[in-house]
Amino acid sequence: MKITALLVLFLLQFIVAFGSDSDPVMDFCLPVSPSNPFSCKNASLATVHDFTFSGIKFPGNFKESGFSATAVNYKLFPGLNTLGMSFVRADFDVGGVNVPHFHPRATEIAYVLEGKVYSGFIDTNNKIFAKVIEKGEVMVFPRGLLHFQMNVGDSPAAILGSFDSQNPGLQKIPSAVFGSGIKMELLEKAFGLNPKELYKLRKRFSSS
Amino acid sequence: MKITALLVLFLLQFIVAFGSDSDPVMDFCLPVSPSNPFSCKNASLATVHDFTFSGIKFPGNFKESGFSATAVNYKLFPGLNTLGMSFVRADFDVGGVNVPHFHPRATEIAYVLEGKVYSGFIDTNNKIFAKVIEKGEVMVFPRGLLHFQMNVGDSPAAILGSFDSQNPGLQKIPSAVFGSGIKMELLEKAFGLNPKELYKLRKRFSSS
Amino acid sequence: MKITALLVLFLLQFIVAFGSDSDPVMDFCLPVSPSNPFSCKNASLATVHDFTFSGIKFPGNFKESGFSATAVNYKLFPGLNTLGMSFVRADFDVGGVNVPHFHPRATEIAYVLEGKVYSGFIDTNNKIFAKVIEKGEVMVFPRGLLHFQMNVGDSPAAILGSFDSQNPGLQKIPSAVFGSGIKMELLEKAFGLNPKELYKLRKRFSSS
Amino acid sequence: MKITALLVLFLLQFIVAFGSDSDPVMDFCLPVSPSNPFSCKNASLATVHDFTFSGIKFPGNFKESGFSATAVNYKLFPGLNTLGMSFVRADFDVGGVNVPHFHPRATEIAYVLEGKVYSGFIDTNNKIFAKVIEKGEVMVFPRGLLHFQMNVGDSPAAILGSFDSQNPGLQKIPSAVFGSGIKMELLEKAFGLNPKELYKLRKRFSSS
Amino acid sequence: MKITALLVLFLLQFIVAFGSDSDPVMDFCLPVSPSNPFSCKNASLATVHDFTFSGIKFPGNFKESGFSATAVNYKLFPGLNTLGMSFVRADFDVGGVNVPHFHPRATEIAYVLEGKVYSGFIDTNNKIFAKVIEKGEVMVFPRGLLHFQMNVGDSPAAILGSFDSQNPGLQKIPSAVFGSGIKMELLEKAFGLNPKELYKLRKRFSSS
Amino acid sequence: MKITALLVLFLLQFIVAFGSDSDPVMDFCLPVSPSNPFSCKNASLATVHDFTFSGIKFPGNFKESGFSATAVNYKLFPGLNTLGMSFVRADFDVGGVNVPHFHPRATEIAYVLEGKVYSGFIDTNNKIFAKVIEKGEVMVFPRGLLHFQMNVGDSPAAILGSFDSQNPGLQKIPSAVFGSGIKMELLEKAFGLNPKELYKLRKRFSSS
Repeated sequence: MKITALLVLFLLQFIVAFGSDSDPVMDFCLPVSPSNPFSCKNASLATVHDFTFSGIKFPGNFKESGFSATAVNYKLFPGLNTLGMSFVRADFDVGGVNVPHFHPRATEIAYVLEGKVYSGFIDTNNKIFAKVIEKGEVMVFPRGLLHFQMNVGDSPAAILGSFDSQNPGLQKIPSAVFGSGIKMELLEKAFGLNPKELYKLRKRFSSS
Repeated sequence: MKITALLVLFLLQFIVAFGSDSDPVMDFCLPVSPSNPFSCKNASLATVHDFTFSGIKFPGNFKESGFSATAVNYKLFPGLNTLGMSFVRADFDVGGVNVPHFHPRATEIAYVLEGKVYSGFIDTNNKIFAKVIEKGEVMVFPRGLLHFQMNVGDSPAAILGSFDSQNPGLQKIPSAVFGSGIKMELLEKAFGLNPKELYKLRKRFSSS
Repeated sequence: MKITALLVLFLLQFIVAFGSDSDPVMDFCLPVSPSNPFSCKNASLATVHDFTFSGIKFPGNFKESGFSATAVNYKLFPGLNTLGMSFVRADFDVGGVNVPHFHPRATEIAYVLEGKVYSGFIDTNNKIFAKVIEKGEVMVFPRGLLHFQMNVGDSPAAILGSFDSQNPGLQKIPSAVFGSGIKMELLEKAFGLNPKELYKLRKRFSSS
Repeated sequence: MKITALLVLFLLQFIVAFGSDSDPVMDFCLPVSPSNPFSCKNASLATVHDFTFSGIKFPGNFKESGFSATAVNYKLFPGLNTLGMSFVRADFDVGGVNVPHFHPRATEIAYVLEGKVYSGFIDTNNKIFAKVIEKGEVMVFPRGLLHFQMNVGDSPAAILGSFDSQNPGLQKIPSAVFGSGIKMELLEKAFGLNPKELYKLRKRFSSS
Repeated sequence: MKITALLVLFLLQFIVAFGSDSDPVMDFCLPVSPSNPFSCKNASLATVHDFTFSGIKFPGNFKESGFSATAVNYKLFPGLNTLGMSFVRADFDVGGVNVPHFHPRATEIAYVLEGKVYSGFIDTNNKIFAKVIEKGEVMVFPRGLLHFQMNVGDSPAAILGSFDSQNPGLQKIPSAVFGSGIKMELLEKAFGLNPKELYKLRKRFSSS
Repeated sequence: MKITALLVLFLLQFIVAFGSDSDPVMDFCLPVSPSNPFSCKNASLATVHDFTFSGIKFPGNFKESGFSATAVNYKLFPGLNTLGMSFVRADFDVGGVNVPHFHPRATEIAYVLEGKVYSGFIDTNNKIFAKVIEKGEVMVFPRGLLHFQMNVGDSPAAILGSFDSQNPGLQKIPSAVFGSGIKMELLEKAFGLNPKELYKLRKRFSSS
């Protein structure tokens, strides 16, 4: 009995998560369980409900900066598993901001569902590409490059973003740089900020 | 002078088009010309207008079956070149149909912009996955599998589809099978149709 | 004991099937069991018999349309697992037909082992490329494109097809379109067929 | 003659730069010219000097933060073209800093050639992984994630970094965020900084 | 005129050869010329003859070791360009040998067209997998691993090999090691051979 | 109890090893156990020690040919798992030799840490590219091609090699060809050696 229990524990702590966004070798792969996303259920158990998603019909609740986002990857929508794509709905209150961030593993196609959005990215020559895009317009953010958005209209805005990875990842610059615990001395030198200024940023972006 | 002219001709008949949807090795690659999509302009010539697209703000004109689609790949939106993605806007009149088709080189994420759409795909076990999805809902069509859509609501419908290839390709079954000129005898045997029935189909789907 | 049994059941319903046809990271990967194809046996257990296959020395039994095919992928020949390739032997009785179909995940190289075969594919501009090829000749079907074959000689024919995927997949148009259960109204509009004609096709291609 | 001249201009403005870090299809591809990196010279013209590089034998000149780096990709070392790899030598004066940055298209293996280096990265859960590594030790920075380094010893330090892309790209956070021209209002909201603080950062990191 | 001539020379020395065996982004890409394999002709110029190949219907002439091979890649069969596959016909006289060799960029599926062939490969643990295979049988050689074949029957033998690369490459061990000019001292130490033995090998395998 | 025990055995004999060096879909994947490298631990259990490696600070013990190598892939440094890279430290006594070998699944960047090393590779046209490189210099060995090294200085030499695969593989020609058990008759014909010469080579390179 003890062996069994150990075995169960052993298995449960696994998160079988190896994988890649290359060509699939099956039609699809529905994960057996949320904690075991890369072991597939028998295909005969799949139903149409595994391939449809209703969770972004409405805006989320606005949080920091009047901004709210629902990232829909294989964890939230298991049918996407192994299919190489995911998406996000982002909502902006008036003046709301999607802070400078990047997705380490994907290009993004951003389609404006509603409103006017100042939208842009920076290339590796440090050149900015930014403008206001409106309902029905599209902007592309090349793989891995820093980008940002702000609602500059006078009503709420919304964007649908699509990614060419089932798990593009997200690093928000303010919290990753100032809220993760990088040595103060390094940040002081890197940004030319004094300890007081850094302390303020650190306080703002630390999660605890 | 003759050599020059020959050379010009020689160059103009080139369509440098080799490529693949794998990891890019540059931030982006704006094609030098529409007929030369894989030779890139100097990155310093790029502007924000190269990365935004306004051509799908409105529905297209309805054609066959009350259906209209604008496929936006690197040919129409050159900024997508080498970035591994493309998209499509599809509009459906009441009862409009997107005929059974497939994209040989991509998965598709279909988001309903408006209306009620019966939407589905067939897997390689010949099992159907189909249901009606509504505004704000999403369906995924796995890479290369046959799929189809029909507006089953009582007002126009629209869908935004995203692809994980800059050129997913499209084969519409009715015209590919019956309008391309496959030997009649083969089609008769394959579908069990008589010459008269086939002739009708052939006439309907031949392009000339 | 009950936990053990549940665990066994739990494990057996898994089909660990995630994977992709990209560069392998090992020499090979022999599946532990048919129902667990992507967990590899210890390489030291491999023998030469794992990498050889004798199952296509002879033609299969002719079925529909005087045609018979044995698709040899990692399920039938486990040594192919992770190696990015698979193959098929197709036999044609006189007049036998390989119906219009496509492989969602692979290019195919078709080599004529015996006979005369009308063979062709359709590209995404709906242009047909077809001709009769004979013993020792080869035709290539680009990835994902619709193709078809018919024995036009006066003796049996055979083809060896190779694929650049360990699981290319197969969708046969007649059964996928007319035998899978797509809504009748959609098919009527898509093909311009009347209910009676469609009913006939549906009856012919439905699996039950 | 005019046509010729136009043609020359036409050709010279091309930078054939499409490509990807996937499997090569040749042994190697030496670019015809620096401005035409993806057209290969005839392989018979290659010599051993095309595949060796002597430009990082010595430290560079220290610049900002007592830090100097020589990124060696296919532009500096053409023999790397299509081979999927590149490298960098980074030198640190005492206290020198490699500011928070990331490579959009590669993993990095960092080997300490000399000295003691505080070295770390942030994952997408905003968790920091950082420690001091010494001569002969190695740290890996996963693809696309934010990382940073500082010489915390009392003598100069040096690192050899290797990448699994021939052009990994580089975005340095301070200049990309504060020196590229992102709208002030967006940065104020994103970082909670006041205009005066932002002005100071902007001034420091703007290139002109 | 001088500029024109220079330009022609300039163009002719190009071998645009960059590429990779990843997902294609077009249906196919017929090279404009043999010396310019990765610039594609306009697809509308393609005919069925571009996708069929008749050059391996008969055995080649036997050379060294009673062995003859025709490697059919995109250089010989341009229609294969960008499609990720190629193939080879190998003929063996009685006792004929295909010397130990490997393909740096592909897995191989070897199908016996005729005869009895001792066939095998070595894995990276230095373990051999070898046996005699006969007409209609198949052996797979995993990507990049050393393999070899010998006709052990009493009549000629033939094999059709397929590769998952449009240019798998080939290194024959005897000539690559002993006929390429590697420093004698290195080879003496590596193989434990004396100068006389090495001289004999060198003489045998040097191309001049 | 018996079922439990069987189950444990069953699980332990698994080496879940499928995978590929394509784009990762997670930040990283720390293997649950050495015998289960592709099931990932929960990311929250990762520490900085998982991403640093101290095992190549010093030379290994010299073995055959005055040569010693430590290959550091995901088996020795689990943090590399799924990240697409690995590395090796090679040490050479005076006159020490790294015998002709190749890596079936990777390009190698070789950086000279110390000494003078005759270093080279052979391309698929059987052309040699070889020269002596010194401390601080770099040579690249294209994916899958045969290469070799020898310390030609008068003091020990060392090299750091990096690979663009987490498991590049290694085949050493002398032992793979002469020590693996390939049929004597085949080797005689392939190399033109007589049985006595071959026996000597076989004896030298057979592992037992």
